[in-house]
Amino acid sequence: MNPYEIIKAKRDGQELDGDAIRRFVQGFTRGEIPDYQAAAWLMAVYFRGMTDRETTDLTLAMVDSGATLDLTGIGGPVVDKHSTGGVGDKTTLVLGPLVAACGLKLLKLSGRGLGHTGGTLDKLEAIPGFRTALDREALVAVVNRAGMAVAGQTADLVPADGKLYALRDVTATVDSVPLIASSIMSKKLAAGAPSIVLDVKTGSGAFVPDLEGARNLARAMVAIGRRAGRRVEAVISDMDQPLGLAAGNALEVAEAIACLAGQGPEDLQELCLTLGSRLMVLAGAAPTHTEARGRLEEAVRSGRALQAFRTFVEAQGGDPRAVDDPARLPRAPIRLAVPAPAGGTVHRLDALAVGQACVVLGAGRRKKGDPVDLAVGVVLHKKVGDPVRPGEPLATVHASHHERAEQAAARVAGAYRLAAGRAPRRPLIHDIVSDG
Amino acid sequence: MNPYEIIKAKRDGQELDGDAIRRFVQGFTRGEIPDYQAAAWLMAVYFRGMTDRETTDLTLAMVDSGATLDLTGIGGPVVDKHSTGGVGDKTTLVLGPLVAACGLKLLKLSGRGLGHTGGTLDKLEAIPGFRTALDREALVAVVNRAGMAVAGQTADLVPADGKLYALRDVTATVDSVPLIASSIMSKKLAAGAPSIVLDVKTGSGAFVPDLEGARNLARAMVAIGRRAGRRVEAVISDMDQPLGLAAGNALEVAEAIACLAGQGPEDLQELCLTLGSRLMVLAGAAPTHTEARGRLEEAVRSGRALQAFRTFVEAQGGDPRAVDDPARLPRAPIRLAVPAPAGGTVHRLDALAVGQACVVLGAGRRKKGDPVDLAVGVVLHKKVGDPVRPGEPLATVHASHHERAEQAAARVAGAYRLAAGRAPRRPLIHDIVSDG
Repeated sequence: MNPYEIIKAKRDGQELDGDAIRRFVQGFTRGEIPDYQAAAWLMAVYFRGMTDRETTDLTLAMVDSGATLDLTGIGGPVVDKHSTGGVGDKTTLVLGPLVAACGLKLLKLSGRGLGHTGGTLDKLEAIPGFRTALDREALVAVVNRAGMAVAGQTADLVPADGKLYALRDVTATVDSVPLIASSIMSKKLAAGAPSIVLDVKTGSGAFVPDLEGARNLARAMVAIGRRAGRRVEAVISDMDQPLGLAAGNALEVAEAIACLAGQGPEDLQELCLTLGSRLMVLAGAAPTHTEARGRLEEAVRSGRALQAFRTFVEAQGGDPRAVDDPARLPRAPIRLAVPAPAGGTVHRLDALAVGQACVVLGAGRRKKGDPVDLAVGVVLHKKVGDPVRPGEPLATVHASHHERAEQAAARVAGAYRLAAGRAPRRPLIHDIVSDG
Repeated sequence: MNPYEIIKAKRDGQELDGDAIRRFVQGFTRGEIPDYQAAAWLMAVYFRGMTDRETTDLTLAMVDSGATLDLTGIGGPVVDKHSTGGVGDKTTLVLGPLVAACGLKLLKLSGRGLGHTGGTLDKLEAIPGFRTALDREALVAVVNRAGMAVAGQTADLVPADGKLYALRDVTATVDSVPLIASSIMSKKLAAGAPSIVLDVKTGSGAFVPDLEGARNLARAMVAIGRRAGRRVEAVISDMDQPLGLAAGNALEVAEAIACLAGQGPEDLQELCLTLGSRLMVLAGAAPTHTEARGRLEEAVRSGRALQAFRTFVEAQGGDPRAVDDPARLPRAPIRLAVPAPAGGTVHRLDALAVGQACVVLGAGRRKKGDPVDLAVGVVLHKKVGDPVRPGEPLATVHASHHERAEQAAARVAGAYRLAAGRAPRRPLIHDIVSDG
């Protein structure tokens, strides 16, 4: 089939064979198939969808477009984790040291924040001296020494994804389950870990707000992993309100450290224990989730989890003293309380609005390449279900400019819905998808 | 709305306002909106369709992309006609002189043949000396003198259509009713005639083979015309078998001349009288279709129709002697009969296969720009419903090469289905659409 026939077949709802998909991806990546044919094909995929087989072939073709990581130098079971992104999502900073303290090797290629969702690289860079640009040898050396390593994506991995994503971004073809799933999974497959846990967020602050959409995405990604010979599970977790209490880069690092010391917010701790126990069993390091969870909890109690974080920070050039003295992290000069306009119970706390307040403050990016203010953000004092007295602070805005502080505080105030009676409860873990 | 938002709105099934459509067409035509965004939008239109209002706005935006014809110098009611194309469709060559003889002014910009469908310009160029490249003044002068003029499309009319069509052609977005309807109607509106009859073909040799599809296309085009302030009707005519008996450029000219002399095949004559009587009433030149038809028949009987054709040919530089002596038209050196393999009745005669035989002979083009052999083609001796004796010639192939003659004869033989009993009858006129 030539490119025209491949577009037409997808347009007409036919299942494309692996050869057609490979040649389309290859031709597009090499510049032999023009953008306009790829754009028409992407829109046809948007409308027609893809079978699991097609999505896997697409993912593998994208992986084949570039280099893959060689993990043979790593001693121990290599694992990976991906989150679809949210507000206050500092999970990697807690999960990594937790599983590293239990013998796993977490090697993660991360991204930067965009829009209302934060990025792990930005958060880590709030630690003085921390370097996220590591070459392959350095990555392997850090993983072997610290049990975990986090670095930025390199351009030679999955070049097809960068090119396809740029085109999707300007042709309204981003919101497609097979295209999202193949984009995420191509990077996970290229990074090489045999065991992968996916944190698929659902709720107002998530990339896929509705539960059904999140389930479809989770199912598609797990199916790709299984067909590609990896052990993959997806945890569908709530992102209708922010995760934990802190949103903003340095503020989230401080909260992650507290969590590793056993003093973190309950939802963050629970999610990290869930993700960690799934990874332990996937990697064959524990026989049951209960036993895995027990070991992870012991790593916190014993201080080994926090020590793993110190080792990791130091191995990537960061100042380990910041781990024990959060005053060494960037701090914003302005603190502005957001008082409750009335009493009641928090019935809703809109993650998207809190994320947008962070963008106003400069903690996030409006567009790629924007600078980020590492110090600023929002610390929540009340979450869904909490009782509130009139005038009591709902949250504190950490800002560098007075005007932005006021704007952000107004957004945060608008994020809360207070009412009488019991608040509707959303579970933290909506579902766990083990089989695509 | 920016281009991204316009793509997304159409993708999501929203109705686009006129301003958005205008800016998209204008931006694309000027090269400000890149091909890949236009391609994604076209595929979204393919899946979502367009309302009559949107299709009309698209058509008018395309018209606005270029020049339009100024008809003020023409004395008399100007009319136009369009056929969606078929095999043996020499309708314009008969209809034009018919209505010209009754006082109408047919000004038609025509195209060339492509694939199995013929083109009016190619057919007219079979007449020695005939010129189809006329500038605006010449066009008006010919119409005023002969009552009709036929010329090639000029590049300054509807440039958006050329650019959009080229993109649709390589992105599998040709087969979309609003895109087909706007492409055809933009050229009709730019050519300026207030009264237009559309001949929408249906059957195996038609661009839209199924009757329901043809009806949708007819309805969409009539709606555009009405909303744009023109008087438009569409006749849905059969193209499951070829129209008339001759297919091939010079052969069709000869058949058109016979028809104007009252000796043409019944289906061709009937279709031209139908189209002509609709045009007469649309243009206000006759009060009823019955009266119009009577006048058109009288134009044939009196010889005025044939005389109008002579005047037209001469006005465009052609040799009028060819009208009375078809031996002056190009003639193919080889004639090969296609004998009936058995006796029976013709149950089917596949127009597409006959058109493909013409392409094999060189009468049509495989791709744009291919040369055309004006002399070659196929003359049918039997059509659906005709009884056939074993060995009796079904058709005669007129060829320039022996090998091609054999190949074409095999295709023509394959186009016939002979069987016992009465043949299933398809009407010549399936429907007339007067109101979109």
